[in-house]
Amino acid sequence: MPAQGDGPAPARDDDALDTDYAPIAAELAAREAVGFVAVGDRFDDGLRWLTRFSGPDREYAFVAVADGDGAETDAGSLHTALCAPALFDEQARREFPGDEVRVDGQGDQAGVRAATALAARSAESGTVLVSRSIPHDAAVFLERAGYEVASTDAVARARETKTDAEIDRLRRVQRAAIRGVARAEAILAESTVDSEAEADERPGAGTVHWNGGVLSTDRLRRQVNEVLAAHGVRDAGNTVIGAGATAADLHYTGTDVIRSGETVLLDVSPRGPDGYYGDVTRTFAVDPDGGWERRAYLAVERARKAALDEVAAGVPASTVHEEAAAELAAHGFRVDSPEVGFTHSTGHGVGVSLHEGPSLGSDDELEVGNVVTIEPGVYDPEEGGVRLEDVVVVTDDSFELLGEYPFSLVPKRRDRE
Amino acid sequence: MPAQGDGPAPARDDDALDTDYAPIAAELAAREAVGFVAVGDRFDDGLRWLTRFSGPDREYAFVAVADGDGAETDAGSLHTALCAPALFDEQARREFPGDEVRVDGQGDQAGVRAATALAARSAESGTVLVSRSIPHDAAVFLERAGYEVASTDAVARARETKTDAEIDRLRRVQRAAIRGVARAEAILAESTVDSEAEADERPGAGTVHWNGGVLSTDRLRRQVNEVLAAHGVRDAGNTVIGAGATAADLHYTGTDVIRSGETVLLDVSPRGPDGYYGDVTRTFAVDPDGGWERRAYLAVERARKAALDEVAAGVPASTVHEEAAAELAAHGFRVDSPEVGFTHSTGHGVGVSLHEGPSLGSDDELEVGNVVTIEPGVYDPEEGGVRLEDVVVVTDDSFELLGEYPFSLVPKRRDRE
Repeated sequence: MPAQGDGPAPARDDDALDTDYAPIAAELAAREAVGFVAVGDRFDDGLRWLTRFSGPDREYAFVAVADGDGAETDAGSLHTALCAPALFDEQARREFPGDEVRVDGQGDQAGVRAATALAARSAESGTVLVSRSIPHDAAVFLERAGYEVASTDAVARARETKTDAEIDRLRRVQRAAIRGVARAEAILAESTVDSEAEADERPGAGTVHWNGGVLSTDRLRRQVNEVLAAHGVRDAGNTVIGAGATAADLHYTGTDVIRSGETVLLDVSPRGPDGYYGDVTRTFAVDPDGGWERRAYLAVERARKAALDEVAAGVPASTVHEEAAAELAAHGFRVDSPEVGFTHSTGHGVGVSLHEGPSLGSDDELEVGNVVTIEPGVYDPEEGGVRLEDVVVVTDDSFELLGEYPFSLVPKRRDRE
Repeated sequence: MPAQGDGPAPARDDDALDTDYAPIAAELAAREAVGFVAVGDRFDDGLRWLTRFSGPDREYAFVAVADGDGAETDAGSLHTALCAPALFDEQARREFPGDEVRVDGQGDQAGVRAATALAARSAESGTVLVSRSIPHDAAVFLERAGYEVASTDAVARARETKTDAEIDRLRRVQRAAIRGVARAEAILAESTVDSEAEADERPGAGTVHWNGGVLSTDRLRRQVNEVLAAHGVRDAGNTVIGAGATAADLHYTGTDVIRSGETVLLDVSPRGPDGYYGDVTRTFAVDPDGGWERRAYLAVERARKAALDEVAAGVPASTVHEEAAAELAAHGFRVDSPEVGFTHSTGHGVGVSLHEGPSLGSDDELEVGNVVTIEPGVYDPEEGGVRLEDVVVVTDDSFELLGEYPFSLVPKRRDRE
């Protein structure tokens, strides 16, 4: 009985995120299966998409049953149930857009509850579709209950195409991520270089100072994460900031003193209240000397443009990656090594998982409503790393950027902060 | 090649979190198993404890093999390997305290890689122990490779007893959680009541204002989360704030306008950089009228004391809960309903999971090094909710509080903020 009063209503009330179960219904029909089961906890992103339930850190289950016989199944005749964990009945009813919240058997394993929910509305045998990573005990419970378990990637495939409501959530969280990057750029623009404190390993590279102290990657990360919190999203442990050599380490979340001249790479990927992620990367350098950093930045900017030029529905995803790689190769960077040059794919889908389909390394054709990162980068453990990343929605003949932020190797003071 | 320079070194360098694999070795010996396998991604807390690896959102594997024949296995003869996901080799080597980081087969499923790693150092058949929730496909891969899969809860049991290094991490993150609560209390203490804006459903209850605007649970949550970010921990989506009726909803993370007189319940459970959680709850009311709120607060304070009085090694965990329940019953609150009164257990273990063993609802005896919450509470959907929560380490004859914060229903201005 949440009292809403006269304040801002929660997003769910006026602007609920539904889930289109039609692809599940179609898969049940195609596979002649009696039902689909997912079991997991709050950290299972597929289950989050299926249920919109931000549940606890213990298991619950989603069950979809084909009403009528399998061959005639369509979206209209699917019955969906959430077997809610104990103490979460009310929240489950508030959040789940499906047909039924079940509270029976709350002391039992989620797999047992799923089998009960299945049997209540389907045949007591037949094929049940699950994701390949369903907890092993849940699969065994379903088998013991008389069902044959077969795996499907229908949920992962369905998640690749976003609805307008999902794109709205992605846009909001991307906006917050960009505010985080803006804060970091502002700090770097305000910072000074203490050239007395030269680094042993890099003569001439002074220590970067800000607000009365040495600026470390950890200090900068806390500032970014404060901005994310103020905008109502959480850093999700994903605020990667590397400086110099650690900017070449794709997932660095440690502490490094920031020095002049070296690349400072910020990859900010917060999660919004509905579970959708943002993902933006910019690279800066305080007082760069015009060497590797500038060459790398220019090459990555051009690779970004080359990649974006390819984005449109119907284009094989790998084409986008190949164009970015060709541009970087033309600028003299390696594209064939896991350690130096362009060491990763040009992008990935973003949704309730930070990394989901489609991958820009795959041969799948891009479709309208795919939401993907475009993030070329080059790295050299001796020099640093440069990556520039935005998120785009694929449209019929091009793309829409979800949030924009300017590009500059040298950090600037901007009005928008 | 991360350059550390002259800044603060990351925790892992001088103060690494090891994992004691002896309980795994003992379990392998007791079960006459050839190995133990865990498969999961960054959201698998057991895998985090086993590997100390803050990996990506795709699967990797941990494999422990008994060197020599099973019957003679002891901790000294266990060989542990992390099958690192692609692009994470360097990070895996930095973080994994075990014997070997394997990079072979990085294109294959983690279960296939685990089977390969097993076969490389163990018999090619025999029993392999796994957690009951290992991904189903991984279990099937192990079976296809010739092993018999059997489940164990050895990892969950081992995690219940914390080392000094773990307690140190828990203390640090609890300190940050307490700073978050302190921020909320300061805001509530500074706030004013707009008695013109009376709530329809509760005559006399004005709207609480702060810093020029209406104070909502969401606005308060952002302030708390900013403080968490500034202290280097992340809110992890766990900053629960309810007001009035939603304070009776155990896991409310929505938006509610805060009104005078009603209980404002803050349950702050951030996650620190090494994966350990804090967990603290305080309840406040702006201008309480001396009714239900004060009675509930007094009862919960006394239940908290009654519970703490029982905490010591050797005491059945359920005794702690029963003492808290008896005290609340003596104050006239129900302790037998899932909706009104004391609706949950008195506490749970805290570690790399927010909720782990031992549960204070269980009959297990508390042991030295258990870290548990003590969190009695009473709720009434018509009135609100009061809960007070701290985290304690169980000692031989008593407990140590991990962080302390004062108790007051009426928010106070304190110097420590």
